[in-house]
Amino acid sequence: VNDQLLPSWRPGATRDAVLAFLDAAEEVPVADRMACFDNDGTLWCERPSYVQLDFFLDALRTSVQADPSVKEQAEFAALLSGDQQAIGDIGLERIAMALTGLFNGLSPQDFTARTREFMAHGKHQTLGRPHRTCTYVPMLELIAELRRRDFSVTVVTGGGTEFVRAVSQELYGVPPEAVVGTLIEYDYAPDPPRLSRSGRLVGAANEGSAKVSNIQTQLGRRPILAVGNSGGDREMLEWAAAGDGPTLALLVNHDDAEREFSYVSTAQTFAEPEPITEVGARLGWTVISMARDWETIFA
Amino acid sequence: VNDQLLPSWRPGATRDAVLAFLDAAEEVPVADRMACFDNDGTLWCERPSYVQLDFFLDALRTSVQADPSVKEQAEFAALLSGDQQAIGDIGLERIAMALTGLFNGLSPQDFTARTREFMAHGKHQTLGRPHRTCTYVPMLELIAELRRRDFSVTVVTGGGTEFVRAVSQELYGVPPEAVVGTLIEYDYAPDPPRLSRSGRLVGAANEGSAKVSNIQTQLGRRPILAVGNSGGDREMLEWAAAGDGPTLALLVNHDDAEREFSYVSTAQTFAEPEPITEVGARLGWTVISMARDWETIFA
Repeated sequence: VNDQLLPSWRPGATRDAVLAFLDAAEEVPVADRMACFDNDGTLWCERPSYVQLDFFLDALRTSVQADPSVKEQAEFAALLSGDQQAIGDIGLERIAMALTGLFNGLSPQDFTARTREFMAHGKHQTLGRPHRTCTYVPMLELIAELRRRDFSVTVVTGGGTEFVRAVSQELYGVPPEAVVGTLIEYDYAPDPPRLSRSGRLVGAANEGSAKVSNIQTQLGRRPILAVGNSGGDREMLEWAAAGDGPTLALLVNHDDAEREFSYVSTAQTFAEPEPITEVGARLGWTVISMARDWETIFA
Repeated sequence: VNDQLLPSWRPGATRDAVLAFLDAAEEVPVADRMACFDNDGTLWCERPSYVQLDFFLDALRTSVQADPSVKEQAEFAALLSGDQQAIGDIGLERIAMALTGLFNGLSPQDFTARTREFMAHGKHQTLGRPHRTCTYVPMLELIAELRRRDFSVTVVTGGGTEFVRAVSQELYGVPPEAVVGTLIEYDYAPDPPRLSRSGRLVGAANEGSAKVSNIQTQLGRRPILAVGNSGGDREMLEWAAAGDGPTLALLVNHDDAEREFSYVSTAQTFAEPEPITEVGARLGWTVISMARDWETIFA
């Protein structure tokens, strides 16, 4: 029976480890069968730039068309000119908040509509395919198999919660309440009641240990499977792996320059950043080699 | 067919309004079928005291047994002596935080175990039945019917998120990620990774307009049905009612001193507090009279 499962995963130790976990999880109470997937670089491409950044840049160009003075704002000037020195001086956090600010005042519904409009047409810069087809087929197969086994499948992303929610049902079958990301606060106003996006984050960006805390506060369970690819997923993978009973920490190694991208994510575990694959090897995680373990990457 | 539905609801205008909404909702896309239920006074009894307060007092007695000096803390001294003057002077918010503090440092798992242990044995003070049987049968029927029609059923409570999550699956079939309440922050520590309850709230208590904001940030959709009973539910009911398409705002009026309790909840809508039932009548909500509309209250 197992031979039929996960057809895009090549036979080998990685696929065997995933299948062994799936079988072992049959003994776990259904209420405890929760899986947390990172999004960027885990469920879909994050190179050469995050999909959400492409969305933000698209919105920035629209804003500049409507009002050319927008491009004089320091964060946008640096970004639009591609001046790496200026970008570095300003810092990515401030730039991200400036981009987020382009949507200040929007209702959740309007923000979702903007996202879906972009996703309906946006294309990957180098792969030449629509962003919505840049998801990894082996991961979609894994999600379908988990769901068949009564897992709650969730997405735990460093990206914007509402951005990912706008597409999570269509791309992954994941409903909005099962998406945990970096959250923007809303402002409420009465008569008639309305919500509008503020420029303020709820707490910190959803990376590192924040992922663990936010999984608990927003999802209310501990995952028995966590899947990630970068330093920002480290704590989440450790959290899943250190639980009782069958658990699996699954890490994507982007080592396929031919079909996708080849790059090394690092984690700040010692004085010097350590490649996340070495962290994984040290901690006994299952590391997916995209080049070796996946027969198909994109549909 | 409709005659068979909601058997504990007596025939009449209220039941008709609920059934008409259920039929109309068949035309709403499944992704938009979300219902938000308040918990205390809406799904189960909140008089003479909140179930969570009984749980806290039980924990306080246990703490005092282990360490009698605990009862000298001002908040606890006032509470244990029932000194209403002192309670008023200290304020309910500070007392609630002091009680929450009894669980500081606990892991989410241990807190859940404490809650379930209490719920397995705790009894209602005057009804003489276990707390876990103080849920309203007509509401359980409505939840089952909503689920049969592919609604996502959620609980949006002013109570502690983790307290309600510990029982929501068993009592209502609602999984933890679909419970939105007042949240305690966790502290994360590594090697091995662990979470422990801090004494700090995430944001404000989940009442009033906070319910609307938190529905959006945590559940990511706007409800088309909201059910509540008190001033703290007002904004949530208005939020649901003001949406597009078929919507329903449903308010429980506790007017049954014989079978449950008779009391008036108020909302601060004008200079003077206004009974929430009058707010409901003014805004066109469907108001449930427990005495008139419900044939059965408890199982």
